[in-house]
Amino acid sequence: MQVFEYPDSSSWPALLQRPVMDTTALESNVAAILKEVQQQGDAAVRKYALQFDKVQLNELQVTETEFAQATAALDPALKQAILQAKQNIETFHRAQQEAGKIIETMPGVHCWRKSLPIEKVGLYIPGGSAPLFSTILMLGIPAVIAGCKEIVLCTPSNAAGEVHPAILFAARQVGIDRVFKIGGVQAIGAMAYGTATVPKVHKIFGPGNQYVTCAKQLINKDGIAIDMPAGPSEVAVLADESCVPAFVAADLLSQAEHGPDSQVLLVTTSADVIKQVQQEVEEQLAALPRRSIATQALEHSRLVLVKDMDIAMELLNAYAPEHLIIACKDDITLADGVVNAGSVFLGNYSPESAGDYASGTNHTLPTNGYARAYSGVSLDSFVKKVTFQRLTQEGLQNIGNTIAVMAAAEGLDAHKRAVTIRLINN
Amino acid sequence: MQVFEYPDSSSWPALLQRPVMDTTALESNVAAILKEVQQQGDAAVRKYALQFDKVQLNELQVTETEFAQATAALDPALKQAILQAKQNIETFHRAQQEAGKIIETMPGVHCWRKSLPIEKVGLYIPGGSAPLFSTILMLGIPAVIAGCKEIVLCTPSNAAGEVHPAILFAARQVGIDRVFKIGGVQAIGAMAYGTATVPKVHKIFGPGNQYVTCAKQLINKDGIAIDMPAGPSEVAVLADESCVPAFVAADLLSQAEHGPDSQVLLVTTSADVIKQVQQEVEEQLAALPRRSIATQALEHSRLVLVKDMDIAMELLNAYAPEHLIIACKDDITLADGVVNAGSVFLGNYSPESAGDYASGTNHTLPTNGYARAYSGVSLDSFVKKVTFQRLTQEGLQNIGNTIAVMAAAEGLDAHKRAVTIRLINN
Repeated sequence: MQVFEYPDSSSWPALLQRPVMDTTALESNVAAILKEVQQQGDAAVRKYALQFDKVQLNELQVTETEFAQATAALDPALKQAILQAKQNIETFHRAQQEAGKIIETMPGVHCWRKSLPIEKVGLYIPGGSAPLFSTILMLGIPAVIAGCKEIVLCTPSNAAGEVHPAILFAARQVGIDRVFKIGGVQAIGAMAYGTATVPKVHKIFGPGNQYVTCAKQLINKDGIAIDMPAGPSEVAVLADESCVPAFVAADLLSQAEHGPDSQVLLVTTSADVIKQVQQEVEEQLAALPRRSIATQALEHSRLVLVKDMDIAMELLNAYAPEHLIIACKDDITLADGVVNAGSVFLGNYSPESAGDYASGTNHTLPTNGYARAYSGVSLDSFVKKVTFQRLTQEGLQNIGNTIAVMAAAEGLDAHKRAVTIRLINN
Repeated sequence: MQVFEYPDSSSWPALLQRPVMDTTALESNVAAILKEVQQQGDAAVRKYALQFDKVQLNELQVTETEFAQATAALDPALKQAILQAKQNIETFHRAQQEAGKIIETMPGVHCWRKSLPIEKVGLYIPGGSAPLFSTILMLGIPAVIAGCKEIVLCTPSNAAGEVHPAILFAARQVGIDRVFKIGGVQAIGAMAYGTATVPKVHKIFGPGNQYVTCAKQLINKDGIAIDMPAGPSEVAVLADESCVPAFVAADLLSQAEHGPDSQVLLVTTSADVIKQVQQEVEEQLAALPRRSIATQALEHSRLVLVKDMDIAMELLNAYAPEHLIIACKDDITLADGVVNAGSVFLGNYSPESAGDYASGTNHTLPTNGYARAYSGVSLDSFVKKVTFQRLTQEGLQNIGNTIAVMAAAEGLDAHKRAVTIRLINN
């Protein structure tokens, strides 16, 4: 971990540099697979499952029997944990529902918004070393609360054609029945364009490797919405002398174990905190199963000593971290200074893991500085807010002249006439 | 206008086909200009202003004197209309502010969301035959309500280096001080990458021609957010025998005058309505200044006769129109059946023009079927909703086991340890 002491603001851009994510080199390969899926449907899906995932898929869709077997097979303690997490995530996301207020902007002019579910959504859950069932909760729960009619989930199977029981249990608990054993670019293509088996959706959510990321960018250009642009995961911790260095070190390591390109940043006003955290990181690292990954991530991680909390917040807002932990005495006051972040964790007892799994907030968050302009996934991500308006005859009479004058000034005479033709004494 | 009587649902995709927007052919040219702006800043901006807009720009930024002259020059009736529209748009968008509720998902686990303004936003207002000052209201008002700190507006000047007074008056009334006389791709590039004069922003809003659309797509890939994907404007009208054919015709024409690629769709259960609307369109068209544009748009417009309102709504939801006018006796009940639309206008006295200018709703809306997954611009477009959480020691004690079990099952041991290290009796 590199240490920076009182860095001049001119050096911040270099200090806050993220690993560059450029998928341009993959684009032509990914585009070719997408096109093949678009044109040949399930046949192309099966071909690439064999080529990339080494699996000969017969049935693409998970059957009732497989769901039942998964439920039977899963450790009861894990089931209970998933159900507890589900309950908290539901509570938090349900509170995001809005009652549409009718606003009378002028007498007789009534305007309102209504949240309508995106009818068809696709969730992608990557395969790999571990089953990311937590992401099913984070995407599936708001989709169900929003009222999305068709929720499709794609996730690769193992070479034996099996999907991890925790994936299937989580999906079933959330209320997702249509799970397809499809991974990678071919999964994104199947959901974007539809095949004989997989329905075409309007928006695709979920994490993935650089191929999946590139595929999502490309289908987005084709008019299918995506959750947000992707990048490596990251955490920034703001700590003062009131922090517990062992906790801070554990938080840094929990981010570092995600992948070699994960970013970890500690900003503090205390030189002692840096020393103690460094020492704790070394000790805790030795005991971690994923220490080789974490070690690589820590190589490009930064510990930054700053003069005061104002500078600290300025630096952190410039970075716009996906996760921001504020382990400081005045954590609540400092939280008022947050301008750019994905999700913020306050105090000594709010580890990022809480939000990753079970506190209720969503863990699909903007990385790579996107927190400057993008929100994390929420109920909003699964709805469109449609505006409605109804003018009475009197209402149009009241507002008509305003519209007519403006339309004429913009040179749009037919816009003006659509009003004047309706006015009395036009 | 083509008439379709009781079309079979298998023919709907062809019937609802939109003009294809493919900017791939422009991409390399647009990318080259963007790159030049990124590397050479204001010099490149000036070069392309001369090349495309035939103007030798000295001062890029509009001065106080120019603002004052615009205010002095503008027709008082237009000023008053702009102020009335501003008030209604403010009223409607202010009502979109949300108070962040703190949710206790479990005892001691507090989670909430906070809307934080996107710090720096850029608005693009195209030049051309008419000054689109209404779009300044639609984008600038929510930006100011959201609390965006830096609001930059780019719009091309005429060959004499002047910006239309209505543009400057609207900008000033909304509270935008930084207006730059820059148009086209170079404006998008200047706001995306920043120049010595133009600040770099985090999100870019506003309409434009296919070059501007392409530039927005490209800078979006580079991590700068955009309002939404763009396409030609469109309206669909659902009418029954209670409609006033002259009003419906006026609404169709007000959309048709936008551009030759505008789309206009009438769906009705009454053959009489089709006949009467056709006749009214012809009569009204003859008197329109922009009749040559409207005539072109009407050539690919469709009048569809359907058996009943269920089929009508199904067809319209499949189309997902930017604007939907429901000119029917049961307009309020029918509105409940809307699944996909950008903005909906109910009854005989709610012309699209009302929402285009002054009723209060936003006129920046999803075209091209994007209404299936995208919302129009609203206050939400100018904020990020950041989640916060604070767990007490007791709260973490309550939720800790759930997190630990899930993290372990996902193979993320450091995530588990970030919790267990904080637990009593860990």
